[in-house]
Parts: sequence; structure tokens; C-alpha cells
Amino acid sequence: MNVNVFKIAMSSPDDMSELDRLISEGQINPKHIVAILAKTEGNGCVNDFTRGFSTFVFKHYLAQKLATTEQEIADKVAFVMSGGTEGVMSPHAMIFTQEEVEQVETNGEKSLAVSVGFTRDFLPEEIGTTTMVEEVRKTVDRLIGEAGIESKDDVHFVQIKCPLLTSERISDARSRGKSVVVDDTYKSMGYSRGASALGVAVALNEVAADKVTNEAILTDWSLYSSVASTSAGVELLNCEVILMGNSAQSVSPFRIGHSVMQDAIDLDSVLEAIANSGLQLHGLPNETDKAKIVNVLAKAEAAPDGQVRERRTTMLTDSDINHTRQARAVVNGVIAAIVGDPMVYVSGGAEHQGPAGGGPISVIIRK
Amino acid sequence: MNVNVFKIAMSSPDDMSELDRLISEGQINPKHIVAILAKTEGNGCVNDFTRGFSTFVFKHYLAQKLATTEQEIADKVAFVMSGGTEGVMSPHAMIFTQEEVEQVETNGEKSLAVSVGFTRDFLPEEIGTTTMVEEVRKTVDRLIGEAGIESKDDVHFVQIKCPLLTSERISDARSRGKSVVVDDTYKSMGYSRGASALGVAVALNEVAADKVTNEAILTDWSLYSSVASTSAGVELLNCEVILMGNSAQSVSPFRIGHSVMQDAIDLDSVLEAIANSGLQLHGLPNETDKAKIVNVLAKAEAAPDGQVRERRTTMLTDSDINHTRQARAVVNGVIAAIVGDPMVYVSGGAEHQGPAGGGPISVIIRK
Amino acid sequence: MNVNVFKIAMSSPDDMSELDRLISEGQINPKHIVAILAKTEGNGCVNDFTRGFSTFVFKHYLAQKLATTEQEIADKVAFVMSGGTEGVMSPHAMIFTQEEVEQVETNGEKSLAVSVGFTRDFLPEEIGTTTMVEEVRKTVDRLIGEAGIESKDDVHFVQIKCPLLTSERISDARSRGKSVVVDDTYKSMGYSRGASALGVAVALNEVAADKVTNEAILTDWSLYSSVASTSAGVELLNCEVILMGNSAQSVSPFRIGHSVMQDAIDLDSVLEAIANSGLQLHGLPNETDKAKIVNVLAKAEAAPDGQVRERRTTMLTDSDINHTRQARAVVNGVIAAIVGDPMVYVSGGAEHQGPAGGGPISVIIRK
Amino acid sequence: MNVNVFKIAMSSPDDMSELDRLISEGQINPKHIVAILAKTEGNGCVNDFTRGFSTFVFKHYLAQKLATTEQEIADKVAFVMSGGTEGVMSPHAMIFTQEEVEQVETNGEKSLAVSVGFTRDFLPEEIGTTTMVEEVRKTVDRLIGEAGIESKDDVHFVQIKCPLLTSERISDARSRGKSVVVDDTYKSMGYSRGASALGVAVALNEVAADKVTNEAILTDWSLYSSVASTSAGVELLNCEVILMGNSAQSVSPFRIGHSVMQDAIDLDSVLEAIANSGLQLHGLPNETDKAKIVNVLAKAEAAPDGQVRERRTTMLTDSDINHTRQARAVVNGVIAAIVGDPMVYVSGGAEHQGPAGGGPISVIIRK
Repeated sequence: MNVNVFKIAMSSPDDMSELDRLISEGQINPKHIVAILAKTEGNGCVNDFTRGFSTFVFKHYLAQKLATTEQEIADKVAFVMSGGTEGVMSPHAMIFTQEEVEQVETNGEKSLAVSVGFTRDFLPEEIGTTTMVEEVRKTVDRLIGEAGIESKDDVHFVQIKCPLLTSERISDARSRGKSVVVDDTYKSMGYSRGASALGVAVALNEVAADKVTNEAILTDWSLYSSVASTSAGVELLNCEVILMGNSAQSVSPFRIGHSVMQDAIDLDSVLEAIANSGLQLHGLPNETDKAKIVNVLAKAEAAPDGQVRERRTTMLTDSDINHTRQARAVVNGVIAAIVGDPMVYVSGGAEHQGPAGGGPISVIIRK
Repeated sequence: MNVNVFKIAMSSPDDMSELDRLISEGQINPKHIVAILAKTEGNGCVNDFTRGFSTFVFKHYLAQKLATTEQEIADKVAFVMSGGTEGVMSPHAMIFTQEEVEQVETNGEKSLAVSVGFTRDFLPEEIGTTTMVEEVRKTVDRLIGEAGIESKDDVHFVQIKCPLLTSERISDARSRGKSVVVDDTYKSMGYSRGASALGVAVALNEVAADKVTNEAILTDWSLYSSVASTSAGVELLNCEVILMGNSAQSVSPFRIGHSVMQDAIDLDSVLEAIANSGLQLHGLPNETDKAKIVNVLAKAEAAPDGQVRERRTTMLTDSDINHTRQARAVVNGVIAAIVGDPMVYVSGGAEHQGPAGGGPISVIIRK
Repeated sequence: MNVNVFKIAMSSPDDMSELDRLISEGQINPKHIVAILAKTEGNGCVNDFTRGFSTFVFKHYLAQKLATTEQEIADKVAFVMSGGTEGVMSPHAMIFTQEEVEQVETNGEKSLAVSVGFTRDFLPEEIGTTTMVEEVRKTVDRLIGEAGIESKDDVHFVQIKCPLLTSERISDARSRGKSVVVDDTYKSMGYSRGASALGVAVALNEVAADKVTNEAILTDWSLYSSVASTSAGVELLNCEVILMGNSAQSVSPFRIGHSVMQDAIDLDSVLEAIANSGLQLHGLPNETDKAKIVNVLAKAEAAPDGQVRERRTTMLTDSDINHTRQARAVVNGVIAAIVGDPMVYVSGGAEHQGPAGGGPISVIIRK
Repeated sequence: MNVNVFKIAMSSPDDMSELDRLISEGQINPKHIVAILAKTEGNGCVNDFTRGFSTFVFKHYLAQKLATTEQEIADKVAFVMSGGTEGVMSPHAMIFTQEEVEQVETNGEKSLAVSVGFTRDFLPEEIGTTTMVEEVRKTVDRLIGEAGIESKDDVHFVQIKCPLLTSERISDARSRGKSVVVDDTYKSMGYSRGASALGVAVALNEVAADKVTNEAILTDWSLYSSVASTSAGVELLNCEVILMGNSAQSVSPFRIGHSVMQDAIDLDSVLEAIANSGLQLHGLPNETDKAKIVNVLAKAEAAPDGQVRERRTTMLTDSDINHTRQARAVVNGVIAAIVGDPMVYVSGGAEHQGPAGGGPISVIIRK
């Protein structure tokens, strides 16, 4: 199996020009595309329509290129659009392709492997509960196998798009005599993200299954995954999972590693994540090192107590700019300063994804 | 002469509790205070009243402590309030004190020296012109002498508060048959900041005086000062100048250095500025180094072409969040990650202060 | 008793020039000032420091004018600063003065009467509970008497500033084995506003006391006052109450009336409130009518279901602009269009103050 | 000729469900659609992608329904998406259809007529100049004829989408030795909108052609159209014009009228515009009147001097919320209060469209 990653600039959420160029030049065969992750330039909050716009246009473009329907594209390719490119974050997409190749001898050297899958649809009353945790766990387990990853330690990034509650879904549950985890539809996003992340944590033995009770979800912040990155969307009822790691069965020219930022300015963990991907660093990355770093994928959030290194910050009391927008600007700036490129992928909202105020950080390098 | 710096946390723009504690404990003699620079938690733009609030309360507090009037405090102490603590920037104030001491032998070792002064009042038609440049130049020249600084290379930070045009001032000029540099009062802030910065540049021989024509102001971005930090305010008609450098006549336990960030993620220049202050670094600062860094003072702005390292950023096209707010969050995050403290002073708007998209950065250390 | 109202423009939160002019001209005797209500130009949300700034400067000004301390001013004058002047709302203050006069025969004609008072301090565990409801009820009862108002129907506006929970206050309650109404300090503001409003409702027989249980607070929106206007502030532990109505013992040249807006565009209720103040209208107010309207005081909020007249609005899903800011712009615009003056007082957040999505509206006219 | 208007709610920028229902039910024949005007829920400023999203999805939907290409739809149907639904404005679209009918005798009664057309493409150096004014004038003249409108007094609304300058276009002009009207691409939007509006004004004899010099554009605010509504977009190089009026050749069940709001709270002009459409009002509209009002189309802007009725407003000094967003909230609120429906079309930015601080207002009624 061969896996490739292409990072392309986007001049707007509907800019297909770079993808089109790569396809025209034969660098990308559109049939091989399995996942597209993009940072789009909306506010990353409730009314961010740049995510839906970008997804719509990507599907439309690929359907035309492959002379098929948009529904077939949707069934085959995972789309994860993360809104919010505050500060110097540069809007871009990552195109992941996968292709069966005649088996090449890898000598046990592990390279980037990717698998994509889905849980079953959830009933409204299951969203944000241990049922969701368990279903995600099973899917992650399965995807590890499908990616040809032998050890759970070789899993470095698990992106999940998960459902949320709407007024209609809540009514549906009630009409069947069931209760939902929370009435507030906005808050249900957090529960769904948190439960999904804990599903990853249990699958990878980061957290013991018996600790993950319904009471612990969104309460016990000591429980978290170091590789999960989850986001909620209204358009689906199941979880869509993209799993990345390293496998000896892959002949990809790329490799992935990760670490966990303890807070928004945790420079050491950025260096650790780079080293974990296999790049030997002596202090800060030099130009040769930087050229090998394809992308960094990180989660950002304001610490719930509003403090960073015991200093008061004002992100949570700023009623003009949502704190997630500020957190993304900071974490992106820190990573960009180290890797010398503002085109890195930082996404907000990190319930049970890394410790409070911090978040997982993964690095993909060209070997 | 002895100069001391105290960095104090503020829980709100009117929080005097830390200053009061230091005075009560005898650490600060309020008579010795010569300047107060603070980061307050407003938006740092036009309608940021946290700056005025903080200034009002500081004056009121000191007038009561010293049993004098607020006007006398204003005549004696320079107040510079910079709004905007986006991202992880922690609101704080720096209290500078100065005290005549019996001359101690310094063996030529240079330490932190500060001087504070004012230009004459400007006529509306002079604001933002070469007349302003020249008056600032003269004041900076004089303050270098007053601070006991022997070489212009030893000047590392020049903070200026400068006037702006209002509708009344424009009318006044016109009634006398004079024209002003720009009709738009908001834009006059940029002209005033730019002309003030160029006054510093000429005084310090950073820019040849004959290059600074009225046409060059806010046009020729190749002309800039590497140590100027200027901000415009409606409350004054002259320029208020705080100059900092190192002098062999000072017995201060502090020293200052500087460098210039070429862009918002220029990590190398942050390290350079630290080294320039006299702290020997081996790669990134370690815990001992960090403990010696009192504060970092930097200027941030979005590059006029919207690009960082040839990547598109969205700061200038974001109509929801002013670009200066985003630039501050990024530059503060980068510096905070290096020095391990989000309580550093980053201010926005950098016309003729460092290159386009970058800005001066100064570091004060405890020797 | 004579009561006067002065509406003055403010060019900034610390602008005392109009008040100073009125005092210099002898129109206002500063000794007679009992309350100052102002609209200041902050965001009206958590980090709005224009309210504190304005209060600080008013106290400072009056203390100097009356050669007394700021604490004495605070004990004697009620200050209510409401942040947020979105849309065309014009920043301003209302100065209320009260003066004993030799009894003039009023022939039973009722005129504007004002009284100001305070509840006892609340323990953290009492904030937002029925204890608060009861204490407010008692204070309102007392103030009705003090204002010389004979019938509860003659009460038309009750402004309350109430306390909120802070982390310290919550800790204090816990250390004594007590629980608080909600852990989230921001949400405690809503509980405190709601309980205070219900205290008014019970005092005025708008709601039966036995319906106001702890469970009903912030839950049963059918319970509300039609004249309460409450706001929470961190600076106090008790409730500060300003009560306005009409009394036959007053010789004021002003009179007050009220109505309840059912939603943000309820034009009919604005006309009703004007009529209720005693101004006979034939359709919309004409120029003579408009000249008699001194000010309108209204509460605005986004309907909890996001709908107005069964149309979807986007206030609650807009992550860039807080919904309270949008609601104020709309309600102010509607009232301004009718009375021909954008300088009217509209304040946000209306828990148990009028029906969901609507709010009380009071009108003060010159007779 | 028959012209129909359908106003449909949209639950998001890509919501086609109501349009689909009307087509499925046979109420709309998609072949007859000539124009779609919508209010989408973005910020209405530079980075509002809801406009492009909505246009993309409408084209995609209609292309599928009519089994044709999106390009053909674009050639045939005019799409005008106006961003920004602040306050209570409800997102919606108006679908205009036109159909040849066997001539019915109208007895001279005039009814709604619509025509759609395009100017030639403009060179960059022509954008915002008198050349643009003249080309728009010609197109408007032609469209009046095409709509079967006999008198210019019967034109009540002219919506124009016009081009703007980009960096590439400016470079192109320069490479040919030409200069452009302004270097700032954002400001070029204003010039293009202003010149387009003046083209309408000249065509309708609202302004004498010889007064419209290049110097007068964006300078002499006394020159304006009372029916133009223009917006700039990056996606076109020519002007797209939708003209509406009343014609004796139309058998439409609708009629249109207009007036001009002098400022944002000009309630009288709203009533005037309703009356001008042919609805006899006695004071405010009653329920029967309201049922006949299909939609109101108005332009909103902050007065350049920041004042409304000689009161200071803070729209222009608010650095957190763009003034166009606030102006839309106010004007929509005022109109909604009168017509009893928040689903009215208010768009921002009104250079040479109505007087400074005001704007044209048109009303479509069912006869």
C-alpha cells in the first residue's frame, strides 16, 4: 500500500485550482483520494458556512472529474473541514491518497498508513454517552487493522467527525420516552466530541474502559486521548473516522509522529512531536529539517481556568472574540515560528483531547 | 542613578492592589516613579477606553498616595497604556522608578537607564510632517544625554505617545489657511506614529535626515527605526517620550537589549534580542535564563500584503476581528513560548517601526 | 417633594462637561442628585469596562464638587451604568435630583417620584434564590412608601443592580458547607437578575409569592415583572434599588408610564407606554408630543427560540456578535423611530423581565 | 407578460427545500426564473462567503432541475446575494419569474415588470469612472424599454452587481500605462458602487449628466439616485442590472413603489414607500395592509458624520462591529416594526444611493 499527502494552498473556500493543477499534471489520480482535511477561513464556530461551502465544492469538483455523483464521492472520501484561520494561519487543504502497490520490501521500516471508516448511526439518546464511546472504540480497533498497523503505539492521529443534537432529534428521543445527554444543542457538540475522543482513548489503552462512565464525560478532564481530534457537525448521524499511523506494510514516503502540548505555548512538545515523527533535531529545526515537515496537526483551546503558566489571560472573558479563535491564533503562531511555515493545521475545541488548556499535536514528515 | 523595574499583574484596568502592596511593603517609593507602561484588556483600537480608565485610576491613586493633585502626577510621570491582550497575553503594568544614589563605581559596566521628556506642542498642520520628525529628533537627542547614555548604540527602546488630528484641530488649521496631512482623523494616527518613529530613526542615525521628506512618511517603508514604539492618543498635543538604554552611570540591577522581528513568527530575532540584552543563550533559554528575563516589549502588525513567508493569511480580509488584534495574539504567543511567560508587552501598529510586517523587540533582563 | 430629570449627552464614558455646565449654570444642585443612569459605549457584556470607568469618574467629579469623599458619594447616589450603544443608540446619562419643597397643593395630580434603597448583603448561597426574591420584595415595599406612592399600580420602573457569584464567593460558601445556585460565574448573573426581577414581581402582586420557588427561577418564563430592569455587577453584595412611579405628593414637572413589549419589534406597545405616561396620542407622536418625551427605558433580548413573529433570526447562532448587542440595536431603532430621538435607554438581558423575547418599557414625559 | 415574486425562508445559505417544494407543487416553473435576490447570514463584508455559497448551490440546483449546465443558468438568471442578517432580519430569498402570456387587457393599470441585463465588460481603468456611469446609463435605458415601462417615474428599484479592482487588474492597467481610480482594492468597491448608482441617477434624470464628473464620484453626496441599490463583487467584470417598475403591459398580480429614507430611523418614509406602491394607508398599516406587503427592499448605512438627528452614535468608532452590520440591524428593525415582519431585505453600503446616512426603500405589494 502506498499513501501520499499533498498540502495545497486555497485562495478561498471554493478554490479548486491547485487540486486541479495536481490532477492535470498527473501528480494526483482523483480515484485514489481517500480523505481531504482543510482549514477554511470562517469563524470556526456555529455560523461558519465556509466548511459546508468547501465540502460542497470539493464533492462537486470530484464528481465531475470522476464522472460520478456527489453521493458516491461522499461515500468514498472523508471530508474534514476545520474553520478558523486566525492570526497567520494560512488556509489550505491536505489531500490524502491511497493506492495498492505491488508489495515492496520495507525491511520493517514503518511509513504513513491511513484508514477511513464509519460507526453505525446513533440514536439521539446515544449521542455523548458511553454507547458512543464503545462504538467509536470498535471502529478505531477495526481501522487499526485495516491500516496494517501492528501496534497501538503506532497510531498518531485519529480525526473524528461526530453528530450533534438538534431540536428535532431531541423531540424524537422524547417521543420515544428517552432522555438526551443535554438539552442545549450547542453544548451537545461538546458531549459528542468528548465521547468520541474517549472512544479513541479506550481503543488505544490510554484510558481504562471502566473509568469512562456517563458521569465522567465532560467532567473528569484527567481522562483524555493524546491522538484524538474530534469535531461535531450537523450533517451526519454516525461518526466518520480517519486514522493515521505508521505501518511496516506501507511504502509511503511519509511518516507521522505525535506529542501532547500541555498548554498553548508549550514549545518543547512541538519539538518532541517533530522528533517523534523520526526527524532528528539538534535544538530548533534547521532549514533542511523544515523542508521535510509536511504539516503539523494540532488542537487548541483556552484553559478552562483562564490561566496559562499561572498568568491570567482574557480569552474567556472577551465577549467580542470567541476564545477558540484566540487559542487557534496563538497555537498556530507558536508552531509556525518553529517550523517556519504558517500553513499548519490547528483546530479548536479539545474536550478529552489532551489535558485542559493543551491538546494533541501530530507531525507528518517526508522521510 | 539607580533605575528599577517592577512588573505587576493587573486583575482589571483599575486594579491598584499589586502596586499598593509594593508601596506598602516599601519596595516602591511612589516619589521615584517616572513611568508606567501597561497592557490593558481593551480592543486596542478606536473605542478602547481601558487605556483612559487605567491612566485615570493610576493618577488618582498616586495623587492620593503623594497627597498632591492628579495634574502634578501627570506632569511628572509618563503613562503609556497599550490596549489589547489577545490570545494568552496577560494584562500587566511595568513601573519604572529612578533614584539619585551616591555614585557607586560601575567599572564601566552599563546598566538600564531611563529618561522621560516632552516635545513642544504641535500645531495641527505640523502633525505627521517633517516638523514633527525634527522636534522628536531633538527631544530624543536631549533624552540620550539626560539618561547618561554615551553611545547611540546603547539606546534600545524609545516609546512615544503622540497626538492625532480631530475635527476641531483640522478646522482650526483651516481657519488659519493651513492644510493638514490627512482629513481622516483615524488615518492621522498613522501619520503621527510614523513621523514620530522617523524622528527616532533620524536621531539614532538609523535613517539619513535628508531621506525623510513629507512624501516619504507612510510611503517609503524602507525607512524605519529598530527601537521606536509609538502610539497616538487624543489627549495630548505634544509627544511624550520614554527612552531606555544602558549607561555606565547607572547602577541599576537591570540591562536592556533589542533586535528587530522581520515578521510575526521570527523566532530567531527573539533569541537575538535576548542575547543582545547580555544573556548568553545556548539555543533556547533554560529555566535560569527565563528567570532573568523581566519583560519583552515588541511591536506587531499584519504585513501590508497579507502574506507571511509567502503564505496567504486572512488577517486583512477578516471583517470580524481587526488585524491588529490578531497580530498581537500571534507575536505574543511566539515570544511567550520562548520566554515561558505570557506576561510580555506586545503592542500593535508599527508604521516606520521595523520592516513591513515586522517590528522592534526589546528585552529587559535582571543582570 | 420635587423630582427632576436631566438627560445629558456624553462624548465618552468620562465626559463630565454637560453635567458640569448644568451645575455651573445652577440648573443642577449637586447635593440633590440621588441617582445617575447612563448608557455607556462598551460591549455591555463581561469585559465592558466603560461602566466602571464612568462610575469612577462620576464619583470623582461629584466628590470634588461637594468637597467630600468618593465613598460618601457612593453611599448617597445610586449609579447604574448600562453598557452597549449599538446601532443608533446615543451615549447619555440621566441625572435624577430630589429636593424637599414647601408643600404645594397638587390637587391629587400625580407626578414623578423616585426612591433609592438597598437590601442587606447576601451570602453567596443566597444569590439567585428565593431568599433574594424575598429581600428584594421587602425593599421594594419600603421604597414604594418612601416615594410617597399610594398604589402599586403607580410604580412604573424598578431598576436593580444585583450581585453575582465569583470563584472566591463560591469557595467561601463551600468552606461553610453550603451550596450555590450555579457554579458558572457568568450564569450566576442571570440567576441574580432573575431572582431580583421576581422580587419586584411579588412586591407588585404581578406574581403570586407561592409560585416563586427555587425551581421556577430561570425556568418558568411565564413569571415576570412588567416594570423590573435588573443588572448584575461584581462590585456589590447587596441589591441597589431605584424605584420610579407617580405620586400625588410630588410636584415634579415629570410623569412616568409603562407597558411591555411582546417582542423586539412591538411598535404598538411603545405607543401604549407613551400613552400610559399620560400623553394623549392620535396615531404616531407628532412634533409636540415628541418634545415632551424625556426618555424611554426599555429592556431587550433575543427570544430564546431565536424566532420573531415565527421567522427565524440569526442572533443566537451568530458567533461574531453577541445576541444582546443585536437585540439592543433593534429595540433602540424601533423606539427611536417612533419618538424621533436615538438617545433612548435600552438595556440587554431580561430574565423574568417581561415575556420571553420581549421586555418592559417605561416612558418619562414632561407634563 | 406576467411577473411573479415568491419570498421563501432559508434555514441556511444552501437550503433549497422551500424552492424545491414550490417547484414540486407546480407553483414555480424553474424555466421562468429570471432573478434571485437573497439575504444570506454572513457578515456582509469582505470575507462573507455565504453569498458565494448560496449562489453556487442555487446554480447547481437549477442546473440539475433543468438538466443543463451551471454556466447556462448563470447566463440566464441574475443572482444577487446580499450578506448580513443582523438583528431580527430573517434570511430569505426572493424568486422572480417572468412568463409570456397571451395579452390580457390591463385597462392601463400598471403592474410589476422586471428586466435583467448586462453592460459590456470594463477595463480596470474604467471601473469607478464616468465611463462606467455612461455604460450603466445606457443599459438602464435599454432595460426600461425591455420591461415595457413607459415613464421613467415608473422605475422603482434598480439592483446592480458591479466589479471591483484586484491587485491583478491594477497591475494589468499599469502594464498598459493606465492609472486606476484608487489603489486600495477594498475602496474600489465603493467607487464601483457609487459610479453604478450615478449611472442609474443619470438614466432616470435624477441627476444632470454634466454634474457627474470623475471628481464628483464619492465626493459630492448631493448627487444620488433614489432607486439604485448597488453592490460590488469580485466574480464579474461587467455590471449585472435588475430593473423593476410598473408597466401597463404587465399582468402581474404585484406592484412596486418607493421612497427615500433620510436617515436610519425615518419611519415616515417607510410609510411613504408603502403608500407609493399603491396601498392606501390610514396611519400605520393594519393587518389587511400587512398581508399585502410582499417585501421591502432598503439600503442602510451609517451617516458619514456619525450623527443621527444631531445625536452622536458610536457605529463609526466601534472597532468590534463593522458599522454596516449595525446600520442593517437598525433599518431592518424599523421596517419590520411597521410591516410586522422581520423578513425584509435590507442591504448595506449606500454610496450615491439616497442621501448621506439614508437610502432608497422600495416596497412590493400584492395588489
